[in-house]
Amino acid sequence: MRILGIDCGAGRTGWGVIESDGRAHRLIAAGAIRTSPRDALGVRLLAIASGIRDVIAVHRPVSAAVEEVFQAVNAQSALKLAHVRGAVFLVLAEASIPAGEYSPLLIKQTVVGHGHAGKQQVQFMMRSLLGPDVPATDADACDALAAALCHAAFTARAVA
Amino acid sequence: MRILGIDCGAGRTGWGVIESDGRAHRLIAAGAIRTSPRDALGVRLLAIASGIRDVIAVHRPVSAAVEEVFQAVNAQSALKLAHVRGAVFLVLAEASIPAGEYSPLLIKQTVVGHGHAGKQQVQFMMRSLLGPDVPATDADACDALAAALCHAAFTARAVA
Repeated sequence: MRILGIDCGAGRTGWGVIESDGRAHRLIAAGAIRTSPRDALGVRLLAIASGIRDVIAVHRPVSAAVEEVFQAVNAQSALKLAHVRGAVFLVLAEASIPAGEYSPLLIKQTVVGHGHAGKQQVQFMMRSLLGPDVPATDADACDALAAALCHAAFTARAVA
Repeated sequence: MRILGIDCGAGRTGWGVIESDGRAHRLIAAGAIRTSPRDALGVRLLAIASGIRDVIAVHRPVSAAVEEVFQAVNAQSALKLAHVRGAVFLVLAEASIPAGEYSPLLIKQTVVGHGHAGKQQVQFMMRSLLGPDVPATDADACDALAAALCHAAFTARAVA
């Protein structure tokens, strides 16, 4: 199953595509979409939507995993993030791609083993699980891959 | 100038189109897009985006006004609203329609005269300003028309 993981952010939205049967996983591609804080909200959402549409067109995922909004961040940041998520969920629905939502805590628990793992541990683990082509220095792409792997784990369990 | 006002909501998203030169205003059309809380987020955003795209295709607005998120509502409601706004801003940007944002307070101050006007006062005022065809019992459509009128007032001032 080909899974698209997305780590939404107003400044950088990470994405990662994996091929997985729930046990064995393979990296297909990963990256991040950057937007400028100087641009209007609509322009930034357009860039993110366009980037995700390109990823879908090229890599043809059949399902998606999106990080939930982490409530502990301040209210303004959470609101900005929710705008990006709204645009991303719209793009996924338009492409008829079902999307699962996972908390950052659950994603880290699933892929690293404990929910308070740091960025570097996630990056190290992505490289261990998916090989040397993981863009390990790109924290947003790694978080997106972690969401995809979490989705793979839960989907495999649900099917098994 | 033809202006599309939008009052975002997860359950009901009101919309209203007016023709205005900043002083004289005319109702073109208004209504609301309903979504079911039983549907997944993507399905609801798809219905809202599709509804707004239809309004744009039929009524050809050249600019838009969207209510800001009212921070005093609870965090969960504000987040839901922000997802809808994200989808709506994406649709507006895709149609190259510039969008202004106005707080509910400023909208009420502009169209009713004081910022703490109730729903019924807004509805009464919309009917007074735009005529008997305003769907006066539809609070969301009236709020959307009020946003459009507020935008008309500020745009006219900016041009004058």
